[in-house]
Parts: sequence; C-alpha cells; structure tokens
Amino acid sequence: MKFLVINGVNLNMTGRREKNIYGSESLESINGEIARFVASRGHAVEFFQSNLEGELCTAIQNAEGVYDGVVLNAGAYSHYSYAIRDAVAAVRVPVVEVHMSNTHAREEFRKNSVLTEVCRGAILGFGKLSYMLALESFFL
Amino acid sequence: MKFLVINGVNLNMTGRREKNIYGSESLESINGEIARFVASRGHAVEFFQSNLEGELCTAIQNAEGVYDGVVLNAGAYSHYSYAIRDAVAAVRVPVVEVHMSNTHAREEFRKNSVLTEVCRGAILGFGKLSYMLALESFFL
Amino acid sequence: MKFLVINGVNLNMTGRREKNIYGSESLESINGEIARFVASRGHAVEFFQSNLEGELCTAIQNAEGVYDGVVLNAGAYSHYSYAIRDAVAAVRVPVVEVHMSNTHAREEFRKNSVLTEVCRGAILGFGKLSYMLALESFFL
Amino acid sequence: MKFLVINGVNLNMTGRREKNIYGSESLESINGEIARFVASRGHAVEFFQSNLEGELCTAIQNAEGVYDGVVLNAGAYSHYSYAIRDAVAAVRVPVVEVHMSNTHAREEFRKNSVLTEVCRGAILGFGKLSYMLALESFFL
Amino acid sequence: MKFLVINGVNLNMTGRREKNIYGSESLESINGEIARFVASRGHAVEFFQSNLEGELCTAIQNAEGVYDGVVLNAGAYSHYSYAIRDAVAAVRVPVVEVHMSNTHAREEFRKNSVLTEVCRGAILGFGKLSYMLALESFFL
Amino acid sequence: MKFLVINGVNLNMTGRREKNIYGSESLESINGEIARFVASRGHAVEFFQSNLEGELCTAIQNAEGVYDGVVLNAGAYSHYSYAIRDAVAAVRVPVVEVHMSNTHAREEFRKNSVLTEVCRGAILGFGKLSYMLALESFFL
Amino acid sequence: MKFLVINGVNLNMTGRREKNIYGSESLESINGEIARFVASRGHAVEFFQSNLEGELCTAIQNAEGVYDGVVLNAGAYSHYSYAIRDAVAAVRVPVVEVHMSNTHAREEFRKNSVLTEVCRGAILGFGKLSYMLALESFFL
Amino acid sequence: MKFLVINGVNLNMTGRREKNIYGSESLESINGEIARFVASRGHAVEFFQSNLEGELCTAIQNAEGVYDGVVLNAGAYSHYSYAIRDAVAAVRVPVVEVHMSNTHAREEFRKNSVLTEVCRGAILGFGKLSYMLALESFFL
Amino acid sequence: MKFLVINGVNLNMTGRREKNIYGSESLESINGEIARFVASRGHAVEFFQSNLEGELCTAIQNAEGVYDGVVLNAGAYSHYSYAIRDAVAAVRVPVVEVHMSNTHAREEFRKNSVLTEVCRGAILGFGKLSYMLALESFFL
Amino acid sequence: MKFLVINGVNLNMTGRREKNIYGSESLESINGEIARFVASRGHAVEFFQSNLEGELCTAIQNAEGVYDGVVLNAGAYSHYSYAIRDAVAAVRVPVVEVHMSNTHAREEFRKNSVLTEVCRGAILGFGKLSYMLALESFFL
Amino acid sequence: MKFLVINGVNLNMTGRREKNIYGSESLESINGEIARFVASRGHAVEFFQSNLEGELCTAIQNAEGVYDGVVLNAGAYSHYSYAIRDAVAAVRVPVVEVHMSNTHAREEFRKNSVLTEVCRGAILGFGKLSYMLALESFFL
Amino acid sequence: MKFLVINGVNLNMTGRREKNIYGSESLESINGEIARFVASRGHAVEFFQSNLEGELCTAIQNAEGVYDGVVLNAGAYSHYSYAIRDAVAAVRVPVVEVHMSNTHAREEFRKNSVLTEVCRGAILGFGKLSYMLALESFFL
Repeated sequence: MKFLVINGVNLNMTGRREKNIYGSESLESINGEIARFVASRGHAVEFFQSNLEGELCTAIQNAEGVYDGVVLNAGAYSHYSYAIRDAVAAVRVPVVEVHMSNTHAREEFRKNSVLTEVCRGAILGFGKLSYMLALESFFL
Repeated sequence: MKFLVINGVNLNMTGRREKNIYGSESLESINGEIARFVASRGHAVEFFQSNLEGELCTAIQNAEGVYDGVVLNAGAYSHYSYAIRDAVAAVRVPVVEVHMSNTHAREEFRKNSVLTEVCRGAILGFGKLSYMLALESFFL
Repeated sequence: MKFLVINGVNLNMTGRREKNIYGSESLESINGEIARFVASRGHAVEFFQSNLEGELCTAIQNAEGVYDGVVLNAGAYSHYSYAIRDAVAAVRVPVVEVHMSNTHAREEFRKNSVLTEVCRGAILGFGKLSYMLALESFFL
Repeated sequence: MKFLVINGVNLNMTGRREKNIYGSESLESINGEIARFVASRGHAVEFFQSNLEGELCTAIQNAEGVYDGVVLNAGAYSHYSYAIRDAVAAVRVPVVEVHMSNTHAREEFRKNSVLTEVCRGAILGFGKLSYMLALESFFL
Repeated sequence: MKFLVINGVNLNMTGRREKNIYGSESLESINGEIARFVASRGHAVEFFQSNLEGELCTAIQNAEGVYDGVVLNAGAYSHYSYAIRDAVAAVRVPVVEVHMSNTHAREEFRKNSVLTEVCRGAILGFGKLSYMLALESFFL
Repeated sequence: MKFLVINGVNLNMTGRREKNIYGSESLESINGEIARFVASRGHAVEFFQSNLEGELCTAIQNAEGVYDGVVLNAGAYSHYSYAIRDAVAAVRVPVVEVHMSNTHAREEFRKNSVLTEVCRGAILGFGKLSYMLALESFFL
Repeated sequence: MKFLVINGVNLNMTGRREKNIYGSESLESINGEIARFVASRGHAVEFFQSNLEGELCTAIQNAEGVYDGVVLNAGAYSHYSYAIRDAVAAVRVPVVEVHMSNTHAREEFRKNSVLTEVCRGAILGFGKLSYMLALESFFL
Repeated sequence: MKFLVINGVNLNMTGRREKNIYGSESLESINGEIARFVASRGHAVEFFQSNLEGELCTAIQNAEGVYDGVVLNAGAYSHYSYAIRDAVAAVRVPVVEVHMSNTHAREEFRKNSVLTEVCRGAILGFGKLSYMLALESFFL
Repeated sequence: MKFLVINGVNLNMTGRREKNIYGSESLESINGEIARFVASRGHAVEFFQSNLEGELCTAIQNAEGVYDGVVLNAGAYSHYSYAIRDAVAAVRVPVVEVHMSNTHAREEFRKNSVLTEVCRGAILGFGKLSYMLALESFFL
Repeated sequence: MKFLVINGVNLNMTGRREKNIYGSESLESINGEIARFVASRGHAVEFFQSNLEGELCTAIQNAEGVYDGVVLNAGAYSHYSYAIRDAVAAVRVPVVEVHMSNTHAREEFRKNSVLTEVCRGAILGFGKLSYMLALESFFL
Repeated sequence: MKFLVINGVNLNMTGRREKNIYGSESLESINGEIARFVASRGHAVEFFQSNLEGELCTAIQNAEGVYDGVVLNAGAYSHYSYAIRDAVAAVRVPVVEVHMSNTHAREEFRKNSVLTEVCRGAILGFGKLSYMLALESFFL
Repeated sequence: MKFLVINGVNLNMTGRREKNIYGSESLESINGEIARFVASRGHAVEFFQSNLEGELCTAIQNAEGVYDGVVLNAGAYSHYSYAIRDAVAAVRVPVVEVHMSNTHAREEFRKNSVLTEVCRGAILGFGKLSYMLALESFFL
C-alpha cells in the first residue's frame, strides 16, 4: 500500500518556529523518520507540503486512485478552510487528520477543526508520533 | 458582449465528486453547454477555474475593462473569503454570484455567503442552469 | 405550462414605496411585462398578491395540481415566516424564491430567508428581471 | 508497563446499541482483543467501566502510581463533565482520550470535548482501533 | 403490558420541597395513585428512583426486554445529561418524557431538555397527571 | 363540559403533506376520531382551523366563557407568534399546547415554542393521540 | 388635521386581559377619551383595530394622503413583524409608536421593537396617556 | 408641582455637535423654551447638567422629596450605566427617560437603554419636544 | 449549633493535586483545622465528601432538620449541576457556597456557578479560610 | 493593622433604598458597627464612599502603602467598570470584593463582576456581615 | 501647531503599576520626553490626565478651537465608554487613539475599543513611542 | 537597517478601487514615497505584494534574518487568516500591522484583526502615512 502525508501552511517551519510547542526537529527529519516507520511496516509513503490553501485542495483531489490513504496536517487552515474540507469530502480515499500539538490546549480558535467531520478520524497531541499513529490506523 | 465565468475551489471536481448533489456531468461538459447557450444568444463567453483564492481575486481584478459581466461560483470560498469580496467590490464590472446546489439546504455554514452583498445579484439551486440564468440576466 | 407568481406583503406598494430600491414601476405594470415575457415563451402565468401571511400559505397549498411552478416573493415574511416555509414544504409543485432587491446589501435582518431551504432555488437582486429569470428556470 | 482502559457511561451497551455507529461487537470482546494486542507488544492492560461520573473520577484518581498510562473513553460525559476533567488534571499519569465514532460527524453537541485540553492527546473515529492506537502511543 | 416509571434526582423530595410548584403529596403517594390508575386499565407498573445520573442510565439500559414502555422524569438532569440521552437512544423500548411542572414557565435553564429529541414524546405541566397521561399514551 | 380544538397554519394539509411525519389521515378524519373519543368520555368538542395568525388569536379570545378548555396546535406559529402567546395569556380558560410530531427531533427552529410558557401544559410526539391526551388531561 | 390611531393584535382585549398591566378600562372607552382630547385640541381622530398583521399593513399603506399622522400600537407584532415595519417605511405619513405598558419592564422579548427604527419616535409606559402624548407630539 | 430636567454627558454640546442629529439650538435655549412651556402649564422646572456619571446619580438621589417628577436624558450613559439605573430604582420620585434623537435609528449600541426598565416610561425621537412631552405626562 | 461541611468531586485530592492552586495540605488536615475553629467558637461540625453528584444531592436533602447550616464546596459540579442546585433549593437549612481558589481567576468555565443563586451567600478565594469564614457567617 | 472599607455608587442610599434587599439600616450605622467589630479584633478601619467611578479608582490607588487591606463594595460599577478593575490590579495591597445582597439572585446583569478576577477573594449575600467576614479574612 | 495629550484612568499609575506591561518610567517622565520630541519638531504640546470619565469628556469638548489635534489614551474606558466616544464625535478637532501596550495580546475585553470608529486613526503596542507616532501623524 | 513592506490581497488595486476610501494614488507611487521617506532616515526598504495567502506566509517566513523589521498590510486576510497569524508568530523579526483606512469605521467584519495579537503593534487610519509611521516606530 502507498500513502501520502500532506503538511499544510507553516509546517515547513517545524523545528524553526515555536520550539516549545513543536520541538526542534525539522520537517525533513520527521519525514525521514516517518518513511522508515512505514517501510518497517512494509508499505510506501510520499510527502507533500504547501503553504497555499488551493494547492492543498489540488493535492487531495489528485490523491484519489493513487494512494491508499492520506494523512493530513493542514496547520492553521484546519480551523477555517471549508475549501480543504470540500476537497476531502470530494474524494473516496480515506483521509486521517493529525496535529502534532494538542490543539485544544492552545488558543481558543484552535479548538475547532472544520475538517474533522469529513475525515475518517483524527489524532492530535502526540508530536511526530501523531503521523505514525495515523498511518498505523491503516496497517492494524 | 463578452462574459467571464469564474469557477472556484473544487469545482474542477464537478461530475466526479458528490454526484447526488452536483450530478455526473463534468465541468468541461457544462462549460461547453454554457458556451453554446451564450452563442445562441449572440454573445461570447470565456472560462476560468482555480483552486487558489488569490488567483480568483486576480481574475476578478483583471476582468475590468475586458468583460461586460462576470458570473462567479466561488465554491466554498463564498462562505469566508473577504479577499474575494474585496476584489468584487474593487471592480466596476457587474458580478453575479451563482451556486449549482441550493446551499441553504445543506450544512449550516453554507447558508451565509460573504460575497452576495457586493454582487449585483445571486442565483442558486438550479444546477448548471444557474450559470445560464446568471448570463441571461445580462441579455434580458 | 401554467405558472403562478405570488407577491407577499407590501409588494402592492411597488412603485410607490422606496423608489431608490424598487424603482417607480407599479406591480401591475411589472406583472404585465412578466405576462408578455411568459407568453412569448409559449406559456401562461397568473398572479396573486396578499398582505396576509395565512392567505399566502393558502395560495401555496392550492397551487398543487393547478400550476407547473410557483414564483414566490414573500416580501418581509421571507425573513421569519416558518408558516410560509411549511406551506412550501407541504406541496410538490416546485417553488422558486425571488427578491427584486439585493436583500444582502440592505439591513442585517434581510440577510436571512427562512424560505430558501425548502425552495428549489433562489434569485435575488435583478429588479423585475428576478421574476423573469425565475420563470426562465422552468423553460430552459 | 501496565495500562488502564476506562470506559464511561453507556459503553457497556457497545454491541447492543446503535450498531450502525458502534458495530455489533460487545465491549467484552473488544477488551479481549485489546488485551491480546497489548500482550503482543509485551505490556499489560486492565479495564474499568462505570456509568457513574463520580466513579470514573475516582478511578482516574487511583490510577496515579499504579498504571503507566490511562486510555479514557468517557462516553457522553466527555461533552460536559468538568468533574472528570478536573480528575484528569489532578493526576500526573498521562491520559489519552479516545472515541470509537467520529464524534464530529454526529450531533452538534458531540463536537466539543471538555476533556481534550487536559489530556495528552486524543484519537477518534477508528472504531475499536482507537483504543489500540492510543495504547500504541505509549509503545512507539 | 408492564411499564416502568423512572424518577430522577430530587424527585424523592416531592411533597417536601417547593410545595407551590410540586404540591404536598409525597412521591410514594403519587406512585400509589399511578399504580391504581394503571391497574384500572389492566396493566402493571413498577417504580424506580435514584439521585445518581449513572444509575438512571443503567435502569434505562435494563428496561429493554423487560418493560413495554418507560415513563421518565429525570428532574434537573433533563437539562444537561447527555448520558441519560444516550441511554434512551440505546434502547428500543419506547420512553416518554414527563415533567410535573410547566418547565417553560420557570427558570430559563429549564426551557431546554436534551432528552426530548430521543424520546417518543413529552408531556409537561399537569402535575401528577403528567405520569398518567404518559402511561395513557401506551393504552389508547 | 365543552372543549375547543384549534388547529393553526398548514394543519388543513394534514394527510396530504409530509406523510412520513404526519401520516396519511386527513384532519377531518382525525377530528372525527377525536369527537368520538370525547363523546365516549361524556363531553363535547368543537373544532376550528385557520391559516391566519390573527384569526387564531380571535378564536382564543372568544373561547373565554364558552369552552371549559382549549387544545391548541398552532403549527409553525408556535415558534414565533408572540401574538398568539398574548392571546393565550389574556384568557382564563385553560389552554393545552399539542404537537403531533416530536418537534424536538426535527429542525432546530422547532425546538422552541413561545407558547408553552403561558399554556397549562404541553404534549408532543404522539401523532393524533396528542390531541386525545390533551383532552384527557381535562377528564382525569 | 386628521389622525389615525391603529391598535394591533389583542388590544381589543384591553380592559378584559391582564388588568394589573393594562387597567380595567376597555379600548372603546379609551378611544372615546382620546377622541375628546383630540377634539379639545381642535383636530380629528379615527380608530382602527385588527388582530391580523396583514390588515395592519394595509391600514398603514392606506393612511398615506388621508391622515396627517398615525399613532401605532402594534401589540405583540411590534417585536417581530418586519412586515409592519416595511409598511411604515413605505409611507411618508409620520408614524409614532406607542405602548401602554413599560415594555422594558416585562418579559425579555418585549425589550426589542423592530418598528422603532422606522417610526418618527416612540412613547411607552404611560398607560392610555401614551396615545395622547403621541398625538400631542403632532400638536405642540 | 416642581420638576427637574437632568441632562447627562455631552448634552452641554447640544447645538454645537452633530447638528444633523441634534439641530443647532443650544441647550440653554432649549431649556428656556421648556421653562416657558412648563410655566404656561402652571408648574415649575429646574435644570441640571453634568458629564459625570456619579454626579448624575447624586442628582437623582437628591430629587427625592424635592421634585414631583424627573425628566432624564442621560446621553450615552443610558446604554451602559447600571449606576444611574440603580439611582433611579432607589428613589420613589417618578423618572421619565427621554432622548431627542430616535436612538433606534442610529448605531446598534444605542438601541438598548439599561434605564428604561426602572423608569416610569420613555419618550424618544421628537427633538426638544421629547422633554415637553415627558413633562406633559405629569400634567395630563 | 451543628454544621455540615460538604466537599464535592475531586476535593479528596486536595494536597495531592495542583498544589500551586490548592496548597499541599490534605483535606483531612484542613477538616481538622476547621473542626478546631468551630469548637473554639463553641459549636460542632461534621464532614462529608463524595465524588458522586447524586450522593451530594442526597447529603443536602438529609441535612434538613439535622444541621443548623451547610457549607458546600461542590468542586467542578458547581459549574453545571442543576441537580445539586435543586437539592439546595429543596431544603430550608441555609447553605453557604465556598471555593478555596478564586474561581474567577482561572478558566473561563469556572466563572459561573449555577449554585450561587439558591445559596444564602458565597465566599471564594481565601484557601482553607473560605470554609471558616463561611462558618463564621453563622456565628457572627 | 489598618484597613479601608470603600463603598461605591448609590451605597450612600443604604437604608433608604430598596429596603427589602438592603434593610433599613443606614450606611453610617453599618460603618459604626463595622468599626466596633474591627476594634474588638484589635485593628483600625477607615471608610470612603463616592458615587464617582474615577474617585473610587483614585482611592484604591492611594491605599497602597497606607492600609493593610481594602474591602471594596463597588455597587453597580462592579458589573462593568474595567477602570476600577485596573485600579485594583495596579496596587499590591490586597482587595476583597463584597456585596451585601446575593447578586446572583437578582437581575441577570448582576451575575457577573468584572472585579472578582483581580481581587484576592469575594464574599456576597450576608448583608452587613459581608463586610465583617471580609475583614475577618485578614485577621484569621 | 499646538496639541493636547489626554491620559485617562489609571495612567497616572504608569511606572508604578504592572511594570512588565508598562515599564517603570513615570507618566511625568514620559510626558517630558514627549514634550521634547514635539518641540524638536517645532510644535507645542500640553497634557491632561484624569481618572474621571466625565472630565475626560469635558477635556475633549474643550479642545475644539484650542488645539490642532488630540492624542487620546483613555485607558480602560476605551473598552466601554460611549460617553467619551460621543465626546470625540462631537468635536471637529482630529483625535488619534493610542495605547502603550498591545491591547490585543492581553485580556479578551481589551480587544475591542469603542473609540476607534470615531477617531482619525489608532496606534497601539509601541510603549511610549505610541504617543510620539500619534503626534508624528500630524507632522508628516 | 533594512525593512520589508508586505502588501496583501487586492492592495495592488490601490488607486484604482474605492477611491473614496483609498485615494487615487497607485501602490507603486505610494511605495516610491515610502522608499524616499526611509532613505531620508538613512535606511533601506523593499516591497512585496501578493494576492495569495500562502505566498504572504512564505514571505514572512523568509524575512527572518534578512530584514530588521516587517510592515504588514494583509488586506482582507487580516480578518480571518490564522495562517498568516501563525507565520508572524513563527518568526522573531518584529512585524507591525498597518491599515490605510480606519477599519473600525467600515463594515462590522473589519473591526477584528486576527493578526494584531501576534504583531508588535498596529497602526491604522492614516492613509499612506500608516506605512511611514510603522517604519518610524523602528527609527525613533
């Protein structure tokens, strides 16, 4: 099986921004660790990152028929992007929402994700483990 | 007279997504039908689609002086994009808002469009006919 | 095919009230123009106006089996009459909601219509053209 | 390491209630499967279920110093029990919140959990897998 | 047929508390009168009262297959107990919600019951007659 | 004793509209059944229906001194008619509010009735039985 | 000068309903007193009362060109009738809103009148004097 | 009888500020006109103006036993001063609230007065006539 | 005189949980200090603690006729338990609400207590002194 | 130790206003009793009262370094004066908020105090005892 | 040109209160620095501070015709004083709102200023520089 | 020192759109003036404009280490872009928010900026001077 991990806006800053929240490991390093984890389970994974809301929509649209599952961390767009929500609803490939931080323990506006309702499930608060647990949900 | 039909985010998925809502006809096919309709009225029409909020703004900005009217289906952006709203307000070319589905009969968040107030008018719920009625508003 | 155009409360004042919003043409004159438009399309149309919420409900109830479609401008009742909403929901004849003015560009309370959800579609902002576009939706 | 899985109100009905949401497998059967999963990872797990809000608080209080982690599905209490929230906040043992169903895709009142903010993380929507992914978060 | 009348929190105080609202007849006396009413109709009735939210859930869960109907006065829990609501939704035995007082004519918070939506129906304001009318709904 | 059953807006459509909610029995047939029920209890009943909010107010005003009780199903007016509410508050004859459907299990706006506070009590969700239970409240 | 005093829904019950609020004098008697007051000032006054929202709209529409001013007590309709509001806005004859009771010192819903904004002014709380003060506003 | 007219914050600017709303007549001139009006009715009137919320409270407190009635235009304090409200509620002398402008036809925050509930009545929208009508309410 | 001090949910954790808020003294130790304080005033005091909402209701119900006053710290239940509120309202024994922490200076949800309205008074923010001040209110 | 008792707006009316709420004892008399109570504890107390919000701020500012504690009853200002709140937050001298009445059992707007969050604690509902309990909090 | 800098409630405490927010420089010292800055630009400046809302209104009223511009830091009054807002709106002299702290990064209630809408502009977050930038807006 | 001025969506239309609000000077012309102003202060400035939300995020991310400060006018994105907010929070370079118009004096939705909280400060309402004052905040 082949999976796609999509990271949204500002996640390219991981390891450089707010280290007390996100740690000091870069997104590239985290992606490497995820790739090794998936490989150890006998599957394949690819990665996509963009700061552009519309490109995230396109990436989700194009996942259909190519990947067996999508892991989506849309960053701040999670809280207001009905566009990304519609993209997820428009495809049959299962999408799992993840957040590295416990979004409920931060600012008020982060408590609501408009994406969750149309995703298969959501995992939040486990740092980089959130990605691996999301992928594990396809393997178990 | 020459008109521009702008389709926003995820509308490139028309015919492939949620067929119970949008039917199974592709956007290209719908555009073809619109073009024939406009031609039959003796006018010309062009089409633009983008998933990117900012590109939709630019397209509206550039319509000024080129087209006699714009028909705009901004998709999910209709519900929160004050950027597109400002773009519409910034041009003198008349813009008509359309939706294929009856947005009021779906999720709660779709009941409000932040665009309507600055458009000339709005037409919603008639499937692909919504576009043609919007164009007809310029012909009658 | 035969259609019914229903005008609700205060629309008998059209042409006499707030001319900056509604123009100075009387409802009778507008109805005449609508009738000519429908006749030119080869169909028939009848008109009903009442200031009474309950009479509007009755007119909608009685449209079933008599008309092929209803065009409804409920005036101010659009914003709070769940009674008219229930009447529309109770009949199988398709009802299209229209407003002459762009209701979103006026007072805050006019931004919400409780009728739209149960109508086939809605058309607003095109002056008397709104009625003709609504009827055109049955012809195209 | 030893873990505690706490199930709250009505979860003793799993397999008997709303099978379209929860499936037809009983809580006992699910617990058995969880136990085998944890054993296969080389750890131990115990289970507690109660319909009583206060007993769930007591169970969480008593987990301190006995277990290495708690997996908590508080059922409907998740949406309003500040008592359970305070119990979680009062202990140092890490607590992971789980839900079998995608609570965001059900009634409006289920979209908010007052517990998430004080838990380490949350996992929802994966059926019985939600429990195993929560436990996996301790193993990975 | 056999029925269960469940009384929730503080209803054991009936006849002792706020007599201007609840009268001065004790719950035991009211239950006796209900029992005679049901017997006169040729049916049987049993009674359960608890101040504990979780025990009320359990009683509702256990009513399945034992009783032909449940009459439920959950007291103040009616206004916020999603746990009891879930218990009602989890069983197939029909549940009728009752209140002795006209809950809408008291404090604001009593105007909303989170239970009504999942009950067969609701009866409120008739004093002890509320119970009998609820039972009558099964007999007529 | 003599009673008046008042049915409000759109209830003349009963049996013809939304049969999944209201069944297929006409209001006339239901009224006949109610009349037989009341007669069997040794009392008399009369019926009034109107789609007009103001006529419903007048009917309630005129019930004073003529009837021993009023059973009122105001239909959609229940949710916003402070006029009917004032009419009920203005008379001493007891008024019982009824709804055939479980209004709490339908659209959000149907969860609130502005009438309940000034009625003696309310009964909802039992189909045509709701009327009979309301009348029974006067007999028991 | 000639004036019209319009009384809305349930005001025909004045003197018979809630005497602690409205006193025990009938509307006819109050109207007589008003007539004498206006005559003493050298002007003429006529009266209209209806329970029907639409008839009140019609009466306001027809006041144009016939009366020099309108005194309007719309009763409970004041709090939600955008139809009456639109009727007032549609005429050039000045309309003064009155209430006999201090509507702010009663139920919460009476604190807002949707009519005030389009009336010349409002007078409330002076019992039958409210009408005379409103008329005085035209004389002074 | 002797009356006190209290003007609150910024009303000393009358005639100098926003003349489109308040006209160009100074407060002194208006007070002179009021004094002549009251004298013509055979009564006496005194005036007090302050920009200080607390001084307005004191003036109201001290009116007890000295004046037969108070006419109060608290200016912007009307919309939030619970202190002035409490002062009005603390005295037995009747207080009538006035506003020169139609406060409902201006900014949203001016639609609510926290004073009205504890005043005898309110009069708004008649310019300087508002004061005279308020005083007239004591004479008629 | 004899008094009852009731501690609700999670207060058995005092001294073990969030010491920055509650200090490190155990509930037993605090109770001992309270007992000595009461004895020094010449009165008697007993203690009750439970995590169960319903047991707290029962304890309050049973206080009637046994104690001269109740001091109630309901913990997190203070913010949503209408059941405990009703229990307090149902007894004539005076109940004083206390909180050790300044609940207004913590999370938003702690700013509202549904109990205060039916208690004699409330004391919050003085640590263990809150209990003694509450008891002092009976002695002074 | 020396303390300052500050009374805010309208509290100079104590004993003269709303006696059902505040009793008939004057503020001077209450202050005398407080002074004797403090003296009996071996401390000193001074008093300040003003109706002016800004003077209350100044009094609080000046308390720093002069008094060992402040007891503050800001009256109606408690519900909206962020100015007084800031004054309290700006000084290091501990301030205890008091209310004689149970503010939660009166009008809705009195349920919230914007001061509590920045005070050491709050005591409400004990009549004049509230002041003494507040002072006692410094002595115990 | 001559300018007036107005400081409102509690700003006399600058340098003494919450130094982490406002720094430890006194208002006098800041004013001195501002005066030197203005002088260096070739203009004159005067200063006014008051804790009294009404005195701030009066100062603004009196600025008309005396100063070429006003710089206003109303302190906590900024968030609720419609009185000061009206004073600003009543004068033609331009008023610039300033705040030393970033009011949006503090408590929720500080995020809204009711003054901004009627000021020429607003500057916040630059400490004492805020005043100088506001004055610079008149010089550039 | 070197600074970056970022202009967001639709600001490329400056001088062409809503000239009553923004004037008729083009963005290029304004930028030229800004550049001359910065040069006159002895510093350097560069400019970036994009209609794309994600590109604005990237520009902010990339400013770190390159510029000494950023002046950001995000246009309509200011009111809802948590993505841009996160980008600002992710960099250490100070960002000052500016708006040319007084956003509080326009539509309701423009009164809130989600960016202000994470910026150093905000300046609004001074037309093109807003940019220069923002830059001046770095120079003074």
